[in-house]
Amino acid sequence: MLNVSNRTAAPPNDSPHAARDAVRALYARDLAAQALGIEILDVAPGAVRVAMLVRPDMLNGHGTCHGGMLFALADTAFAFACNSYGEAMVAAGAGIEFIAAAARGDRLIASANETSRSARHGIYDVAVTKASGELVAHFRGRCARLRVPSGTSA
Amino acid sequence: MLNVSNRTAAPPNDSPHAARDAVRALYARDLAAQALGIEILDVAPGAVRVAMLVRPDMLNGHGTCHGGMLFALADTAFAFACNSYGEAMVAAGAGIEFIAAAARGDRLIASANETSRSARHGIYDVAVTKASGELVAHFRGRCARLRVPSGTSA
Amino acid sequence: MLNVSNRTAAPPNDSPHAARDAVRALYARDLAAQALGIEILDVAPGAVRVAMLVRPDMLNGHGTCHGGMLFALADTAFAFACNSYGEAMVAAGAGIEFIAAAARGDRLIASANETSRSARHGIYDVAVTKASGELVAHFRGRCARLRVPSGTSA
Amino acid sequence: MLNVSNRTAAPPNDSPHAARDAVRALYARDLAAQALGIEILDVAPGAVRVAMLVRPDMLNGHGTCHGGMLFALADTAFAFACNSYGEAMVAAGAGIEFIAAAARGDRLIASANETSRSARHGIYDVAVTKASGELVAHFRGRCARLRVPSGTSA
Repeated sequence: MLNVSNRTAAPPNDSPHAARDAVRALYARDLAAQALGIEILDVAPGAVRVAMLVRPDMLNGHGTCHGGMLFALADTAFAFACNSYGEAMVAAGAGIEFIAAAARGDRLIASANETSRSARHGIYDVAVTKASGELVAHFRGRCARLRVPSGTSA
Repeated sequence: MLNVSNRTAAPPNDSPHAARDAVRALYARDLAAQALGIEILDVAPGAVRVAMLVRPDMLNGHGTCHGGMLFALADTAFAFACNSYGEAMVAAGAGIEFIAAAARGDRLIASANETSRSARHGIYDVAVTKASGELVAHFRGRCARLRVPSGTSA
Repeated sequence: MLNVSNRTAAPPNDSPHAARDAVRALYARDLAAQALGIEILDVAPGAVRVAMLVRPDMLNGHGTCHGGMLFALADTAFAFACNSYGEAMVAAGAGIEFIAAAARGDRLIASANETSRSARHGIYDVAVTKASGELVAHFRGRCARLRVPSGTSA
Repeated sequence: MLNVSNRTAAPPNDSPHAARDAVRALYARDLAAQALGIEILDVAPGAVRVAMLVRPDMLNGHGTCHGGMLFALADTAFAFACNSYGEAMVAAGAGIEFIAAAARGDRLIASANETSRSARHGIYDVAVTKASGELVAHFRGRCARLRVPSGTSA
């Protein structure tokens, strides 16, 4: 239903190969994503899919996946997607809605897509689902590029 | 400046001792909080302070503390605070604003306070700071009590 | 990229005619939407498009459309979309990101789409754009159905 | 419980007189706030209280105060508070939680307080209550100062 023009500046590089390289380089330095066992499934410019298995050390006091771990998975997909053009963006904030609980052993998929992007800011939406497709959480992240090189219009 | 009456129903138990017991029992089952090295500092009914040391396996691709780990710390303080009355509340959603980066070795403090609570819902605000008092992140969590026993007015 | 099954219960009525009737009935009672000059463009089950002209009495101290008026437009699209199945849903909360300013005389379009819906809860995303397609704001609303009739599984 | 140092740069002017003058000047240009009948109650640097009477043309299809009108009231308190130092800040985004419905004839009070402020960004929390003190909504606004004059450290 929507058909919006939400881009005020072309990113420096939006080829699929460059996106994969940028995300791989980021992942190689992301010790937290590695420690969580997060796995990269798909990468395109502005869109990333990652997976994570819910381990025993990810459970909260109710015996379900800790909200912090669900957020960390979604946040990682968001960070990869917003940095996929090769220019450094940092998260400014995010919101998450918890829809359904995830259990030990569930393999969760986080799919990040770009909703809006300008030279300075971006909004990305991430859906976290089970392998069955059942929705677990919805995440919306906001990122900012703190320093825009002179000569670039924002 | 604010002086608002925001409570529509008294919680079943609001003694400091009961709050400490409820949070200790929750922590004992919270494998994720334990795996993150989260430490309980203070507990009062509806208010909890916890601490976490930023370890190397908590760093993101920019070399600073991963947003997911900051969220997990704040979310844990929130979960402990909203469950401190001994009745089970689950997180419905949350938002976080990232104010400043945290580095490896920083000891972070998350202070959760109750902003609003009724028989069915609650809102809790959490400030994450460094030991120096510098603000790192602001978190607002919303919780819900899914099943209200019959005879209780919500 | 996303293909998620996010519906745990079929709504009672999802025909296009019933959706139009439900939204028209709601609009007829919505004095605020009428006072803002909001106009209904399209209605489908779970999806609504409305329009509003930025009048002089909608400007803030910076001379651009007041954030409250942008929110009111998006919130109206959200309310119409989440009530389009004919069962009463109330807003529980919402977030909005302001992307670009709108000026006096701009005709704004708010397009609401369903992101998730169960018997008790829903999440709707609304994009507010100018007639040119330029993005003005992104809104995410959360709604709840306070009383589920007995016999309905939530 | 909290005692956080959340200010990285002193604002140019934090006298109570200057704050009142800045807010009065902003209000004089804010046609939307005037059209809503919003009244200024108290002004201090970073903190503002305003009031609004719920009129018939502010009701939604459920016969209660439209969420957009509640947001507009809170957003106005937020805008006044974040601009009370005399340097122009614009809203970047906001979230609102609806706690209780407000009825025709209710006089609502919105109390905005500063939660965090740096040279470039600010977070403000606003509680909307009835005259009885009953909580109606909680709002959190984020503002940004788009252009920092050269020579200013952000």
